[in-house]
Amino acid sequence: MTSFVSALRLPVGPVDLTAIDPAGTPAYDGGKEEAEAALEGLGPELAELQERLYANRAGGRSVLLVLQGMDTSGKGGILEHTVGLVSPAGVKVTSFKAPTEEERAHDFLWRIEKALAPAGIIGVFDRSQYEDVLIGRVRDLAPADEIERRYGAINDFEKRIADGGTTIVKCMLHISAAEQKERLLARLDDPAKHWKFNPGDIDERARWASYREAYEIALERTNTDAAPWYVVPSDHKWYRNLAIGHLLLEALRGLDLTWPPADFDVEHEKQRLRDEVPVQ
Amino acid sequence: MTSFVSALRLPVGPVDLTAIDPAGTPAYDGGKEEAEAALEGLGPELAELQERLYANRAGGRSVLLVLQGMDTSGKGGILEHTVGLVSPAGVKVTSFKAPTEEERAHDFLWRIEKALAPAGIIGVFDRSQYEDVLIGRVRDLAPADEIERRYGAINDFEKRIADGGTTIVKCMLHISAAEQKERLLARLDDPAKHWKFNPGDIDERARWASYREAYEIALERTNTDAAPWYVVPSDHKWYRNLAIGHLLLEALRGLDLTWPPADFDVEHEKQRLRDEVPVQ
Repeated sequence: MTSFVSALRLPVGPVDLTAIDPAGTPAYDGGKEEAEAALEGLGPELAELQERLYANRAGGRSVLLVLQGMDTSGKGGILEHTVGLVSPAGVKVTSFKAPTEEERAHDFLWRIEKALAPAGIIGVFDRSQYEDVLIGRVRDLAPADEIERRYGAINDFEKRIADGGTTIVKCMLHISAAEQKERLLARLDDPAKHWKFNPGDIDERARWASYREAYEIALERTNTDAAPWYVVPSDHKWYRNLAIGHLLLEALRGLDLTWPPADFDVEHEKQRLRDEVPVQ
Repeated sequence: MTSFVSALRLPVGPVDLTAIDPAGTPAYDGGKEEAEAALEGLGPELAELQERLYANRAGGRSVLLVLQGMDTSGKGGILEHTVGLVSPAGVKVTSFKAPTEEERAHDFLWRIEKALAPAGIIGVFDRSQYEDVLIGRVRDLAPADEIERRYGAINDFEKRIADGGTTIVKCMLHISAAEQKERLLARLDDPAKHWKFNPGDIDERARWASYREAYEIALERTNTDAAPWYVVPSDHKWYRNLAIGHLLLEALRGLDLTWPPADFDVEHEKQRLRDEVPVQ
């Protein structure tokens, strides 16, 4: 069976999101219950590899998982179910909201740079620098030439971060408009989810095609070797969570990190402990 | 059965840690396997209450869990097993190391203030402001009158944070010197744990009594209503993890937060979705 990495990696070139089935399950032929169990099964290795990453932090490596997708596409669910499999001590999650006044007074990458995780830690972006070429483009939040500038700026930025030791995994959570409608209706049906709902979310759906186009342009122009895009069909939450788990796992495995050897004499230290004056 | 909160709450007044059994299991009469299952069982309510906290973030409430204890007492284990029960998006963990040059150029609470979680988020301190009156005192890292000043400064700081809406839960992870010795030997026996071991950890054991005294002083002087101390017997990892889970749960329950009501007309929004022009 092909790997999730090769099945979900977006080929370089023009992007047509209508040709990718949001309800597909590439590289997986199981169902919901198996997928949920399979995800849990990834937990121990994910946790161990994160710990190994931290143990080797002097080596300067880190992983950055970028989650980008329309409202209800499941960024929160991935954080809870997939990222939640590793210790919160080893993860730095940043949820990007509409930029603050201070953030708007800086280049769009200023807040992104500040949010990067240190070596040894898995950084996770819930939304990201791509907001500035997605909603930024659809809603004309910046002049056209500024939007145009940003694609190259993002590529240069990501290249630098990758060259500095960070494995970047960019995931576009691909849902259908019909599935989003179901999820919004489900939010409206559940008083515990009303706080997540904003009437503007419905208005935004009228721009669905514009967002798709903005995604297609952004995906095509920033799909680099240094920071490749994965398009993750996300109409099935269980597939989405499992797929991201595999992408994260492969990124960590790819670092090929071993436990750092002791920089002290292990037997000598054991003897010191055995010989110590009783402590109490 | 008494609650973990009442069983572990340190009474106001002089503190004698030798009178508290590090292998005790107050408020719990089960064993290891039951405790581990019981901890997992707390997960769904912890996760839901954290989400409720976030949903109500405009109300300004947050929770701060302070983990303080000797090396190997289990701060990392609590992060992984207990804090890991809630979504990493709802948690901000800060692991305090030896202060940097920039941090030392500021008051000792400067880096603490910067690390506080925003409203709606559970902040967790892995080590804390107490390092500055623990190792600070034992190793004479500051003049005696400066150490003396810090107890009051901590109380004032914590009172302000608590008055601002943060429920502070301070946990002293109480282990015996014998148990620490076993855990250090276990680290030496496992190549996957050598990176966690520092020969200085053994030297520090010679100061065990000085640390205990520093803890007793700190606990007595900062055991306030605004920011009470809990002494958590931690020789049994499974008890420690479960106990902290209960303390966190009670802190969240105590906020008595309900789901925010919709600030829009739910039926109207449902109708808009049903009536919308087809989106694709």
